[in-house]
Amino acid sequence: MTDPLVELREALRAFAAERDWDQFHSPRNLAAALAVEAAELLEPFQWLTDEQSRELSAEARAAVELEMADVLLYLVRLADKLGVDLAQAARNKIKLNAQKYPVERARGSSLKYDEL
Amino acid sequence: MTDPLVELREALRAFAAERDWDQFHSPRNLAAALAVEAAELLEPFQWLTDEQSRELSAEARAAVELEMADVLLYLVRLADKLGVDLAQAARNKIKLNAQKYPVERARGSSLKYDEL
Amino acid sequence: MTDPLVELREALRAFAAERDWDQFHSPRNLAAALAVEAAELLEPFQWLTDEQSRELSAEARAAVELEMADVLLYLVRLADKLGVDLAQAARNKIKLNAQKYPVERARGSSLKYDEL
Amino acid sequence: MTDPLVELREALRAFAAERDWDQFHSPRNLAAALAVEAAELLEPFQWLTDEQSRELSAEARAAVELEMADVLLYLVRLADKLGVDLAQAARNKIKLNAQKYPVERARGSSLKYDEL
Repeated sequence: MTDPLVELREALRAFAAERDWDQFHSPRNLAAALAVEAAELLEPFQWLTDEQSRELSAEARAAVELEMADVLLYLVRLADKLGVDLAQAARNKIKLNAQKYPVERARGSSLKYDEL
Repeated sequence: MTDPLVELREALRAFAAERDWDQFHSPRNLAAALAVEAAELLEPFQWLTDEQSRELSAEARAAVELEMADVLLYLVRLADKLGVDLAQAARNKIKLNAQKYPVERARGSSLKYDEL
Repeated sequence: MTDPLVELREALRAFAAERDWDQFHSPRNLAAALAVEAAELLEPFQWLTDEQSRELSAEARAAVELEMADVLLYLVRLADKLGVDLAQAARNKIKLNAQKYPVERARGSSLKYDEL
Repeated sequence: MTDPLVELREALRAFAAERDWDQFHSPRNLAAALAVEAAELLEPFQWLTDEQSRELSAEARAAVELEMADVLLYLVRLADKLGVDLAQAARNKIKLNAQKYPVERARGSSLKYDEL
């Protein structure tokens, strides 16, 4: 099996190379594009209740899926440009979060770590 | 090898279960959290030139890496809650983008597909 | 009485001039900064229920107020750089929204205009 | 002259009342909507250079103007719901920024206040 994050990185490199798009893919542009896509992902949820957001229509879910894909693609591309190992960075962050949110204090609370 | 997206999904499920956090992880809350993290990722880039954004200091790069990890973690968690296969969604989106941005027309241009 | 949007515009012009900051205030940088501030404004709300968001603590409300100020300041600054009359643009948009959301169809619905 | 922020607040109150939309206008929903609009405002700038962003086409500028209006409208509405005096909050924030960015240290620098 190929690691999908590696597979996507390679596909995006080829995609950009064929179109001569590396000139546009500065980290700052990619970070802006990623923020735009993340907000487009939030858009269909903005007036929904929590409950409604758990029961998307097939149409809404398909639209959300495309926006999620866009976020992942820009994230993989930015990681490639910055030389970041995304999977490893995420593993490290989970460990950090486990320290910031110890089970006994964080259980059942949505408070930020500095308010626990 | 384990698929890192599957490994992270499982780690996040356990993390939330131990803390009784599923109650907070509605799709709309996760989408909002993801948008917040994406903006935090943009924050260190906001006053940089394209050139400066390619040459981050070690300190800035480490901060950026943590924000990228946050974006990935919320994305994986949201995908889990919505039953989305992230890797497959991203592969499909690349194919769609290839249709929207044919090489001969998109080469060297940053125009949106409907302006090409 | 002075129009507060004009007063803020003038104050921000002086603030930037004294610090030689016009060089950084390109529309694209200001738009990025505004998006970052808007996400910081969303941050304290991300895990709250609708009900909780209506009853902020004094501390949370004060923090939110500062973020709202940041959004307004970048918006006024961007409008100045682009020569946009913010108040007039907002008046025009309300008229446009009234056409997109006629009372009889939009009443009690959170659907987007193209779904009504 | 009427203060445009007061005028817009009143117009938005009437707009929402006629459509029975207060039920959707919780602070958290409005904050999410504002973040979405701010990202839509960033969208047309994401691949532009600083220089290009200063020379928008008439078409791009008109689109940007509409997004700026949306940001202002949600900001005014959120301020109304939270009882925030936007103009005063912005004046206070400028004073705070003047302390964080003293002229002699901030001149010509885009560094954050804690790095100056």
